[in-house]
Amino acid sequence: MNSNQPSLINVPINVGLLGAGTVGGGTFTVLSRNAAEITRRAGRPIRITRVADKNLELARRVTGSQAAVTDDAFAVVDDPAIDIVVELIGGYGVAKELVLRAIANGKHVVTANKALLAVHGNEIFAAAQKQGVMVAFEAAVAGGIPIVKAVREGLSANRIEWVAGIINGTTNFILSEMRDKGLSFADALADAQRLGYAEADPTFDIEGVDAAHKITILSALAFGIPMQFERAHVEGISQLEADDIRYAEQLGYRIKLLGITRRRADGVELRVHPTLIPARRLIANVEGVMNAVLVQGDAVGPTLYYGRGAGAEPTASAVIADLVDVTRMHTADPEQRVPHLAFQPDAVEDTEVLPLAEIETSYYLRLRVEDKPGVLADITRILADQQISIEAMIQREPNEGEEQTDIIILTHRTREKHAAAAIGKIEALPVVKKKVIRLRMEELG
Amino acid sequence: MNSNQPSLINVPINVGLLGAGTVGGGTFTVLSRNAAEITRRAGRPIRITRVADKNLELARRVTGSQAAVTDDAFAVVDDPAIDIVVELIGGYGVAKELVLRAIANGKHVVTANKALLAVHGNEIFAAAQKQGVMVAFEAAVAGGIPIVKAVREGLSANRIEWVAGIINGTTNFILSEMRDKGLSFADALADAQRLGYAEADPTFDIEGVDAAHKITILSALAFGIPMQFERAHVEGISQLEADDIRYAEQLGYRIKLLGITRRRADGVELRVHPTLIPARRLIANVEGVMNAVLVQGDAVGPTLYYGRGAGAEPTASAVIADLVDVTRMHTADPEQRVPHLAFQPDAVEDTEVLPLAEIETSYYLRLRVEDKPGVLADITRILADQQISIEAMIQREPNEGEEQTDIIILTHRTREKHAAAAIGKIEALPVVKKKVIRLRMEELG
Repeated sequence: MNSNQPSLINVPINVGLLGAGTVGGGTFTVLSRNAAEITRRAGRPIRITRVADKNLELARRVTGSQAAVTDDAFAVVDDPAIDIVVELIGGYGVAKELVLRAIANGKHVVTANKALLAVHGNEIFAAAQKQGVMVAFEAAVAGGIPIVKAVREGLSANRIEWVAGIINGTTNFILSEMRDKGLSFADALADAQRLGYAEADPTFDIEGVDAAHKITILSALAFGIPMQFERAHVEGISQLEADDIRYAEQLGYRIKLLGITRRRADGVELRVHPTLIPARRLIANVEGVMNAVLVQGDAVGPTLYYGRGAGAEPTASAVIADLVDVTRMHTADPEQRVPHLAFQPDAVEDTEVLPLAEIETSYYLRLRVEDKPGVLADITRILADQQISIEAMIQREPNEGEEQTDIIILTHRTREKHAAAAIGKIEALPVVKKKVIRLRMEELG
Repeated sequence: MNSNQPSLINVPINVGLLGAGTVGGGTFTVLSRNAAEITRRAGRPIRITRVADKNLELARRVTGSQAAVTDDAFAVVDDPAIDIVVELIGGYGVAKELVLRAIANGKHVVTANKALLAVHGNEIFAAAQKQGVMVAFEAAVAGGIPIVKAVREGLSANRIEWVAGIINGTTNFILSEMRDKGLSFADALADAQRLGYAEADPTFDIEGVDAAHKITILSALAFGIPMQFERAHVEGISQLEADDIRYAEQLGYRIKLLGITRRRADGVELRVHPTLIPARRLIANVEGVMNAVLVQGDAVGPTLYYGRGAGAEPTASAVIADLVDVTRMHTADPEQRVPHLAFQPDAVEDTEVLPLAEIETSYYLRLRVEDKPGVLADITRILADQQISIEAMIQREPNEGEEQTDIIILTHRTREKHAAAAIGKIEALPVVKKKVIRLRMEELG
């Protein structure tokens, strides 16, 4: 494509979606909701035009009137109008047949199927290589965290030494519950099932099989070796006792189910098991259903990637990132596959940065005041006049004979101009003895 | 490229390096040390063939006899044999001229220069777009953390709501020291200078300018808007008092210098200032010179990226990742720019996954034993016979009238087969009353 042509193309990329379950529904939702923004990034609209699911009613509920629905997945894979097939069926059975057939038909494939790749990845990638198509699988490891991209592209300068990851949200939730509430494994599992974080048959999660699929994939990416799932050591958390979590804590450790792969001179370690890790490490503080992957490279040192490892929209985030990747490859100027500013040059918007006065944040205020009655009433009145509400307050006990003290106030969110006005008035009070110390505060939650 | 051709090409990509300082030296070192592995990933050798630096002696020391050295950077930029120019000079002066001239000459550019991009990025990217070349800048934000790639590609499905980052290691080190040791700002700064974490003139770091350059770039990438550094609110940490760090702590907060950018209906916030954040957040526990960026997307939720934000090799890691990106674009089958398994298909190695017996790790052992003299001696003898040394041990005080107790042992690293042999012998002791609980332990440090 010549660089003088517009970088946005109106012809959509047509996607065929196999599987209308949780992730399929999330993919449909996010692709619709963020269509404009995704098109600005990809350079071309991405549309799911056909959806296949054995449950036709579910498929229709997910897609509304926006896509043709069928119960025959092979019809989608064989449809010449489909550019990319998204496989969200799971398992090694029909999913494998469908992926290989899509490849044979010259279509690119996006999949979230870690089991399929860990077990049959070598065969699938060889077929894709031969046909000159892409099989993208960001969603297969750690859900919405772009860890495949980080290992495969972001860390490509490094000799990777090891990778260790909390890559199964169900087991991390159970372990967090066992530690926080002193629960047994059985009770924590029941909690997880009640909250929808564990399936009715939780075997694949709790016995470490799901984590083993994912660490197998990361091992291949990190070290440039074939997938070797059949040689992984897999041990889950179902035998873990609450006593050991407590003893570990006393010794300064947390127990996490880690997928670990390490390069040694004589081979590669590939294993999943409950692991004690020092409580002070960042990864030891990853709680609940969150995932995190720690990668040790020889040049960069440790890097950590944290986020949601499962769920409809987080997984859809990874599926769609792969769709954008494929679309950019096929649409944009090949010299500029990824636009410099993430969005296509003619899709950059002239949104203005706001002036400081309009910023919204919470505030920490420290006031040096005379220690006498009525001071606090004056101050809170000024804040109330500016519509600023108080979240917390502490007043330092004055030392023996001291006539001044510190008041610390945490406010709720307000605009900078209101905070500035209030501070000006507070500083004008005769009982306030110094310039007010003002720091901003963000919950980041 | 036809998929039946070999994917490795022997003709090197020729790189011209501008600036032989810390990062330049690191780039040279890492590219040499990991040449084989990088070639397996990129599909083609990447060679620095010319190096320019005003300090010829430094340039010669860095490159040895492996590259031609000059003090004329323009000669490198104008050299038709150079495919990619790496700009590591810094600043807005000659660096800008050199980058624009490289672009005009049709060369791709890799730069770590955040100041240049935050201030002149719009002009530079427009020139690159016109010429059909890439300006890659992973190293400009958060050093070795692949955050540009994450925001620009990994999160492309999301409407990004806000980005908040600890993106200046000098100030984070100073804040960690102030909190840990109760130091004043001036004393913590002196420490940082003594350790080489702060420059002799630390103004750009401590006054927040460096962080503002970086958050300006992230703001443009996240929201699809032009760089607007001139409108950023920039406030550093030089006025911060130890008292406020202490009060914040009492209230459950940590103070960090954050770069923050947030999208609102009426515009974009873009600001750098000391910020109170809840101590329980993962990002609040990022200490010392480490960097971390938290991104909130509407589909994926929060994701966090953590690693070294500065230093020779971490920054080189990002520079070289960009070089691999450009090389893959120009070498590999365009349909398969990034190989499925990170390494080119004919460069995947048949390294075997080791059997469980050969795994090396530390162990947590819990033993239920009779509470009588000599028990510990028997156990430690068995461990010593297997060459397993003990890192820590606790013995539970038996309850009133109880005749058994628990011994917990943490071992140093050993092979699984030695641990298994020792455990077998320990279980055979008559004083050991139950199966030994055995968990693995990793320092991850």
